[in-house]
Amino acid sequence: MKFTKMHGLGNDFIVVNGFIEDVRIIFDKAAKICDRHRGIGADGILLVLPSEKADLKMRIINSDGSEADMCGNGIRCFARYAFSRRLVKKANMTVETLAGIIKPEVIVKDDLIEGVRVDMGCYSLKCKDVPLKEDVKEEAVDLDIEVDGQGFKFTGVSMGNPHCVIFVDDVESFPVEQLGPKIEKHPFFPKKTNVEFVQVKGRDFLKMRVWERGAGLTMACGTGACASAVAAYKKGLTGPKVTVNLPGGDLFIEVEESGRVYMTGPAAEVYTGEIDLNIL
Amino acid sequence: MKFTKMHGLGNDFIVVNGFIEDVRIIFDKAAKICDRHRGIGADGILLVLPSEKADLKMRIINSDGSEADMCGNGIRCFARYAFSRRLVKKANMTVETLAGIIKPEVIVKDDLIEGVRVDMGCYSLKCKDVPLKEDVKEEAVDLDIEVDGQGFKFTGVSMGNPHCVIFVDDVESFPVEQLGPKIEKHPFFPKKTNVEFVQVKGRDFLKMRVWERGAGLTMACGTGACASAVAAYKKGLTGPKVTVNLPGGDLFIEVEESGRVYMTGPAAEVYTGEIDLNIL
Repeated sequence: MKFTKMHGLGNDFIVVNGFIEDVRIIFDKAAKICDRHRGIGADGILLVLPSEKADLKMRIINSDGSEADMCGNGIRCFARYAFSRRLVKKANMTVETLAGIIKPEVIVKDDLIEGVRVDMGCYSLKCKDVPLKEDVKEEAVDLDIEVDGQGFKFTGVSMGNPHCVIFVDDVESFPVEQLGPKIEKHPFFPKKTNVEFVQVKGRDFLKMRVWERGAGLTMACGTGACASAVAAYKKGLTGPKVTVNLPGGDLFIEVEESGRVYMTGPAAEVYTGEIDLNIL
Repeated sequence: MKFTKMHGLGNDFIVVNGFIEDVRIIFDKAAKICDRHRGIGADGILLVLPSEKADLKMRIINSDGSEADMCGNGIRCFARYAFSRRLVKKANMTVETLAGIIKPEVIVKDDLIEGVRVDMGCYSLKCKDVPLKEDVKEEAVDLDIEVDGQGFKFTGVSMGNPHCVIFVDDVESFPVEQLGPKIEKHPFFPKKTNVEFVQVKGRDFLKMRVWERGAGLTMACGTGACASAVAAYKKGLTGPKVTVNLPGGDLFIEVEESGRVYMTGPAAEVYTGEIDLNIL
């Protein structure tokens, strides 16, 4: 089986062209394929497949063989791969995912791929959308939460998944590992929540560290960067366009008046390989 | 640059054919190449090079760009690669390393490579060879050491590098992470030491967990398996030929009357790849 190794901000994927390769075996062998010492090694596998509803279909297989709905870092890699391999003719394409049709656009400058811009859909600040346990007020902005006897203000944001954005003075020294898991499982959030700790560095610049629901500390979370930009903009701390600096690198986020959010970020191709899956 | 990804008991390497590829750039970029998210990902890089003293020369580049003298898991991968690529004509070959000439032999059965047997040189139990701080007695067998107020019997073995072998009743539940680092740096061992905790499971079967000097808990340590087999044999606990079960898998060790030790174990080829190092 031929494959291409790619990453978006350090979140790395094995990309397989389902037009050429038989991908059925991959589901059973995902754990062995993603093993970093005895297999190829990756956070997940992206399958490039034909679609009846869009230009292409993307399936994301986690390293435990389960399937993910969508992934911001993954869709950027997928779009770059599809465009550079000419599986689509246009730089802006439609991709069928388990989270619906996603529209990434490959940004080309001087014949070089600079990054990928992705329509991330619309945010919601409504308490029942986030969701929050109680419908406290119209918008989930500046609500109070208490953890370990400490009080924090947070903004609840839905980007299709739940986010709890907390602005802090110094994100670098903030005890994310300690408070993240407690907020993730706080009774306020019936479906648990991703937790973003955000420092405002300027009108167009945020620095963020994230505790991902079910995954813990990660290098980059696309929907988390979007939620942070939305919260900062709604609170008047920044304009509608900001660069969000994450441990894995930068994402550029645009919040439209309509509520639609766009994320632009890098996708890198690392190498191509060929493996006989029978040996795993 | 073309490469092959291999592993020996989960200790994984990027193997590069220096007869074809320009390997000079690799030293500077080792950290980026070995990065498991943004590069190829590996514990180290094996360079296959011409030699004036032996059939081939092996250089081992660690993920920090430094060079290793020798590695039991690495030399098995090297030998399998050289034999299957026909860079040597014989199954037994001589390989120049920074630790001298090593003689691995590829074991072929029914046209399949079963494993690689490596002459690991001669052991020594002399206190000054291990080395121990004091020349307590003729052979460093059954000496006493105290850690955290607990007393242990140990056998000091040199396999070119220092080993402290301690026999325990139940290696699975033994607090290796707790005692390993304390014994590693115990004043008894002026050059520090690798520490093997070993359970005798039969006359030809040992179970071992290792705390490697400078590396901590690892899946497999070839010289550690040899030292454990030597200690068990010298104490009359086993015969001269034993299987040593490590967390990463099994190694078969033979101790000759002459003092020479042979290690036989697996080497697996996972995939082949091609990378443009300029992008890293």
